[in-house]
Amino acid sequence: MSAAHARGATAGVLITFEGGEGSGKSTQVERLAEWLAERGREVVVAREPGTTAVGEMTRRILLQTAPDGLAAEAELALFLAARAQLAEEVIRPALEAARIVLLDRYGDSSVAYQGYGRGIEPGRVVELNRWATRGLEPDLTVLIDMPVSDASGRRGRPPDRLERAGTAFHERVRRGYHRIAGEEPERFLVIDGTKSIDDIQQGIRERVEKLLAGRVPQRTESG
Amino acid sequence: MSAAHARGATAGVLITFEGGEGSGKSTQVERLAEWLAERGREVVVAREPGTTAVGEMTRRILLQTAPDGLAAEAELALFLAARAQLAEEVIRPALEAARIVLLDRYGDSSVAYQGYGRGIEPGRVVELNRWATRGLEPDLTVLIDMPVSDASGRRGRPPDRLERAGTAFHERVRRGYHRIAGEEPERFLVIDGTKSIDDIQQGIRERVEKLLAGRVPQRTESG
Repeated sequence: MSAAHARGATAGVLITFEGGEGSGKSTQVERLAEWLAERGREVVVAREPGTTAVGEMTRRILLQTAPDGLAAEAELALFLAARAQLAEEVIRPALEAARIVLLDRYGDSSVAYQGYGRGIEPGRVVELNRWATRGLEPDLTVLIDMPVSDASGRRGRPPDRLERAGTAFHERVRRGYHRIAGEEPERFLVIDGTKSIDDIQQGIRERVEKLLAGRVPQRTESG
Repeated sequence: MSAAHARGATAGVLITFEGGEGSGKSTQVERLAEWLAERGREVVVAREPGTTAVGEMTRRILLQTAPDGLAAEAELALFLAARAQLAEEVIRPALEAARIVLLDRYGDSSVAYQGYGRGIEPGRVVELNRWATRGLEPDLTVLIDMPVSDASGRRGRPPDRLERAGTAFHERVRRGYHRIAGEEPERFLVIDGTKSIDDIQQGIRERVEKLLAGRVPQRTESG
């Protein structure tokens, strides 16, 4: 029913959120976390890179370095470092404590961005993710899909020269996400990101409800 | 005669220095660089991680994080990031400009420390190094070999509890280096690190002289 993630069958649930810039992932993660908490679930939310001290430091390197000043392999290795640390320090312990883990980006981001976007062979990225996380795979991945121009439109102004130059990159990333999702249809929920925030959230909740049915012991009954 | 490193045959020379803590690598690199410069060679010296902005930031993460607070895979990925960036930003351009590149640590350090030391399968580390550097291999690797107790003795005081606990780790690292060197005897010059600094330097210069004979065009004749 879901991808194996190298842990006990009674453990928690790992749900990851993917999509381009400006697709509204963070808002959806937040709202889903609130909804789950209201229903008495123990939820852990993390963003990648970040959350761990190592991840936050890695995030700073990525932000401080000009994109074309960073070798593609170096960029991927930095994401892998943050991911490895997050998997060991946060995700795995939370899953072992039967919690629901919501991640704003995970391994698929690297396949889409460093793989399809920057040109590292996508199969290689998949394999490196597996190595870094010791095979810790999501039970469900929500892909919020959005045309590239719509996503940049959320900035409320026309794209500048640099952003226009990046459109081809973001198109490759988007097509990459489509391929990844197409290869694992059972793991993916692909949602049209041009729909309203409420509609998107509703679609996510329905799928999550099905996933959780009978999987995680509820602490309290509420709502 | 030497390992291929995915570049033109007329290009520069890559010499790496390896060994445990306190083996005196940096001193030897410095003195060799001076000697080569005096002979009119164009030399580039780098230490790893470090030298590049990305490498220095990575180095800071590694220094600021307690060793047991860092997943082995995260640690290796951070070194790979620094290495990938160093290879692309510093080493490859220098080699293409026919310079001699001296590196204080390179891929073998990860095989010895994160592989043999921390338990990641050494063959996997070799393969990850190759991926990160796009196959950029040293022409010569100088391993300054030293008993672990001697190396720690250089601190001028008996080892504390933490350092004693680390002895088994450093023994594994040392044996790892022996195995790596044993597998590629042509690439390695293994030098007894208990000899005097002058004797060690002399051994290195003799080997480097042989390596350079007829390989790099000399700019000026001096000394």
